[in-house]
Amino acid sequence: MIRIRFLGTSAARPTVARNVAGIAVLREGRSLLWDCGEGTQRQIMRFGTGFSFSEIFVTHAHADHFLGLPGLLRTLGLQGREDGMTIYGPRAAQRVLSSAVRMGVERVSFPVQVKGLEPGERVDFGGWAVQAFPADHGIKALGYALVEEARPGRFDVDEARRLGVPEGPLFGRLHKGQAVEVDGRVVRPEQVVGPSRPGRKVVYTGDTRPSPETVEIARGADLLIHDATFGAEERRRARETGHSTAADAARVAVRAGARRLALTHLSARYSDSPQLLEAEAKAVFPASRVAYDGLRLEVGFRE
Amino acid sequence: MIRIRFLGTSAARPTVARNVAGIAVLREGRSLLWDCGEGTQRQIMRFGTGFSFSEIFVTHAHADHFLGLPGLLRTLGLQGREDGMTIYGPRAAQRVLSSAVRMGVERVSFPVQVKGLEPGERVDFGGWAVQAFPADHGIKALGYALVEEARPGRFDVDEARRLGVPEGPLFGRLHKGQAVEVDGRVVRPEQVVGPSRPGRKVVYTGDTRPSPETVEIARGADLLIHDATFGAEERRRARETGHSTAADAARVAVRAGARRLALTHLSARYSDSPQLLEAEAKAVFPASRVAYDGLRLEVGFRE
Repeated sequence: MIRIRFLGTSAARPTVARNVAGIAVLREGRSLLWDCGEGTQRQIMRFGTGFSFSEIFVTHAHADHFLGLPGLLRTLGLQGREDGMTIYGPRAAQRVLSSAVRMGVERVSFPVQVKGLEPGERVDFGGWAVQAFPADHGIKALGYALVEEARPGRFDVDEARRLGVPEGPLFGRLHKGQAVEVDGRVVRPEQVVGPSRPGRKVVYTGDTRPSPETVEIARGADLLIHDATFGAEERRRARETGHSTAADAARVAVRAGARRLALTHLSARYSDSPQLLEAEAKAVFPASRVAYDGLRLEVGFRE
Repeated sequence: MIRIRFLGTSAARPTVARNVAGIAVLREGRSLLWDCGEGTQRQIMRFGTGFSFSEIFVTHAHADHFLGLPGLLRTLGLQGREDGMTIYGPRAAQRVLSSAVRMGVERVSFPVQVKGLEPGERVDFGGWAVQAFPADHGIKALGYALVEEARPGRFDVDEARRLGVPEGPLFGRLHKGQAVEVDGRVVRPEQVVGPSRPGRKVVYTGDTRPSPETVEIARGADLLIHDATFGAEERRRARETGHSTAADAARVAVRAGARRLALTHLSARYSDSPQLLEAEAKAVFPASRVAYDGLRLEVGFRE
């Protein structure tokens, strides 16, 4: 299961109900952060997502997306952390992120690296990766996609038995794509293994205008988490400030053929009454919802 | 009325229940902040203390006391603030505070100054001042005392009438200490005005070991807000890390002849169960209490 926990869903500044940007991503025992606005460490405590992540991916160098780094690193140090931490962000933001990392950490008790990424680069985790893609936000900004490799096709146990393959290691070898010999006959994997199945995909845009690059990377995504700073009445302001309306986000989801859409980075004016944004998105793409701080979304395999 | 609102009462790192250091001080329509840890802007929103302050006094350059500055300044800018802001701190912390101020503020829409203070220096507000005093914390650290000038003595209206002084401007001149002439006779202020009355005093130590300097500045204080990071069982750790136990704080209050004591900067282990600290302090100084986030204390005139 991939679990997404929203730690902050407000744009630019926090409100009483919503903190600034932060998303915890948990995949089979491994976790990472997307963005780390001021107060993220306290949101992690509040929602119990744990401090065991080793990677933080910052979308861009606007303060509401990274000011939580120094306090978080300091707290990890106080906890006695020894494991390394890598902070990724746009290459253009590397200097700002490096100075944020040093700010206020009197003793770094564990190794911290800041690495710049260009659009298209991916950080590989073995079987899955986080891939950077370009956001359209005025300054250099990235979105991030969690992309899994395709899984092997379904194994047809009955057919394998019918072909005389004994249950055990030979099943595994066939499933991995290797031919096996049974009583002098060769059984080929395509006889018992179906077509490979696509991995899961979760896409987070960070701050962006609606863009063809998002449509491209979000093609068939299980979950698209999209900037929805404004409602339709502020369409112009969204364009000017490098953001999207809820309906913009929904149109991207439709074009990409995404399965679900979560709206985040809400302007403070919608903080307590996000229903308008949700309605505008749902009118375009029914599987839309507005995220809130603490919302947990699960992404399972499709079958 | 002087109103003190605790915005954060946790030491070093936040907990679910307590944010890191921050205190809003409101005195007759004017407000200021003592310390500004990460997340202080959101605490201000939560507790409704308002953003109209023009001065922030930072006790020292440990991260839990100033990391809230860049986000706060950015939010003030987004709100369209034009009034200037002055951030005070120990002279040795000026460079760190200046870089925090610049961090993450893309456009500063209002003038921000960082000014270093030495122990003994005071910032005058006309009739009252904030005075810096030395804290004993290992690194250069200050405490701050809000100190009011003495008020004129009580005006004896009956006696003034008896002496033939007509009600009106002459009353005011006498109260300000000027002699007046009535029907050829001189009435001197000491005939109708009692002894001057002491102004109020609120003292905040920031992080400190118990120290004679605190006893000195807190002499007769209406309210002493003192570091109480640990309980008695961690007396040694308190000394080593430059902090106080709850009983240390209470002994300082006793020696200073303070009227009330508020304990703050609690280690995370006491976050949810501060009763122990309160009991240890009360055993020494009954007018002790442990602060919590959102606690409001009022300091009125003594009579």
